[in-house]
Amino acid sequence: MSTPSISWPEKVSLCEVGLRDGLQNEKVIPSIEQKLQLLDAVVASGVKIIEIGAFVHPKAVPQMADTDTLCRTMKKVDGVEYRALVPNIKGVQRAFDAGLSKAKLTVSASEAHCLANFNSTPVKMIEGFADCAEFAAKNAMTLSGAISTSFGCPFQGKVPFEQVENAVRSFVKLGITELSLSDTTGMANPRQVYELGTAMRQLFPQVQWVMHFHNTRDMALANIVAGIQAGVRMFDGAFAGLGGCPFAPGASGNVASEDVIHMLHEMGIDTGVDLLKAMDTARLAASFVGHAPSSAVLKAGRCVDIVKEKPQAQNNA
Amino acid sequence: MSTPSISWPEKVSLCEVGLRDGLQNEKVIPSIEQKLQLLDAVVASGVKIIEIGAFVHPKAVPQMADTDTLCRTMKKVDGVEYRALVPNIKGVQRAFDAGLSKAKLTVSASEAHCLANFNSTPVKMIEGFADCAEFAAKNAMTLSGAISTSFGCPFQGKVPFEQVENAVRSFVKLGITELSLSDTTGMANPRQVYELGTAMRQLFPQVQWVMHFHNTRDMALANIVAGIQAGVRMFDGAFAGLGGCPFAPGASGNVASEDVIHMLHEMGIDTGVDLLKAMDTARLAASFVGHAPSSAVLKAGRCVDIVKEKPQAQNNA
Repeated sequence: MSTPSISWPEKVSLCEVGLRDGLQNEKVIPSIEQKLQLLDAVVASGVKIIEIGAFVHPKAVPQMADTDTLCRTMKKVDGVEYRALVPNIKGVQRAFDAGLSKAKLTVSASEAHCLANFNSTPVKMIEGFADCAEFAAKNAMTLSGAISTSFGCPFQGKVPFEQVENAVRSFVKLGITELSLSDTTGMANPRQVYELGTAMRQLFPQVQWVMHFHNTRDMALANIVAGIQAGVRMFDGAFAGLGGCPFAPGASGNVASEDVIHMLHEMGIDTGVDLLKAMDTARLAASFVGHAPSSAVLKAGRCVDIVKEKPQAQNNA
Repeated sequence: MSTPSISWPEKVSLCEVGLRDGLQNEKVIPSIEQKLQLLDAVVASGVKIIEIGAFVHPKAVPQMADTDTLCRTMKKVDGVEYRALVPNIKGVQRAFDAGLSKAKLTVSASEAHCLANFNSTPVKMIEGFADCAEFAAKNAMTLSGAISTSFGCPFQGKVPFEQVENAVRSFVKLGITELSLSDTTGMANPRQVYELGTAMRQLFPQVQWVMHFHNTRDMALANIVAGIQAGVRMFDGAFAGLGGCPFAPGASGNVASEDVIHMLHEMGIDTGVDLLKAMDTARLAASFVGHAPSSAVLKAGRCVDIVKEKPQAQNNA
């Protein structure tokens, strides 16, 4: 078999989604002061893209009810991108009113999922975001898109390639060109990630791709490596691996940011994030939600932590 | 960036090491009856290579004290390879006396580790296995070799390429050509696995390679994918992810066989193993050692388990 050499990137960016997708599935909701403390810690660790919350209905997602307050209270740091998840024009307007200049629209790639939950198709739903795009253009806001169930759906199992392609094409038609392929249900596998990522990058070279994985079946880090091999350079992660999976009670949640950072640094890929500070953030987050963090590196320590002697022994031994 | 297509193999073999490396690091030791029950379950699931125990000193490793009895009691099934870990000629002889035709010699690639523990170098230790090779040749036994700390060492950190190469070369000189690159301390990362695997396969094309990963820092599945990309086709796994890490109390142990099987099947790679039966084996093993299994697929279920509707919906939705 041929073994082509893999060219690894020097740098990969991490988007911290702990304050949104992490907390959104937790039972204990941190106070606004605790959220601000977490946000400060994330910024201090060097993360440059942060999803701070969601402008959704407070009764549907009480964990996100204080996103307006959080936006108005937080100190914005230059060079950091703050964004929130929004479901529709109302959400975009709330994000704008709260002082955010970036919002992420989300839709499911799965037609079965969309039809079951919204009695609409993904394409029609995205076409309905035209008002969001118009509002954003007028108000100097940037929109990105997240395409959930890109790798599998609880209603239809495998999601045909065309359904993902159609969703991407519809977003691109609206002028939204930062897109996340999301695996909320933790069904993605590395081969699929590589193949879908490669095909999408070839079909839509103008898109800035993001991938979002949950560690439900322990494949998240393998999927991130596969995404990197497919040319993707931005990945979501959540401190302490918070989140869980609504379809699999007791399962792991979002891939833990600190595990992603640790792996990438071990691979010689820079993230711009201070791993020790990210580990501290994860400990803080875990203490706020009242359960142990799910990340491996917090349990086992970094690779370098088990080395008993000083690194200079490496070359002399 | 170029995105070369990856050619995945149709089949990858799993070596079940739960009865050895899994149980070796557990506090509660299953009875001989329970071990036989586990062995039957492993065979019934379709695994064809099984490491059933170790011929080491019973005081040093009490979990393995009944390996002789296990060998003499078990029913051998045609087409299944039973092997045991041995440290020296005494172990090889005990394995032979117990009716085994395969034994695995193990040595650390790290010179610092070898010097600290055995006051010898890896090369000298392997040269000392000449008596084992002679005995095996006379008695129609097959020997394989495991090279631990191939990916990192608690004494010297990174292990220079040459130290792994020297260990491999010494084994090959003895005529031992099935070799496992082992990451007992869970320090391997996917880039390193790909690079070491590729280089070793090019240097030693006559070797049948095996890789052995622990999930200490959650990278085991990513490492297996990297190993497959490097051309390796045999991987160790332990039911329920038993084992732990002596250097990181509380950390995950061996990569769980059922997680490996689940991922490979999701990737369209056959293992010849019945996943549901492997999951049952893992539940049985966990009940014997008295703690929850560490595998993700036992917590979350298989990907297909969360699909609510029948697969035919896939193409019609």
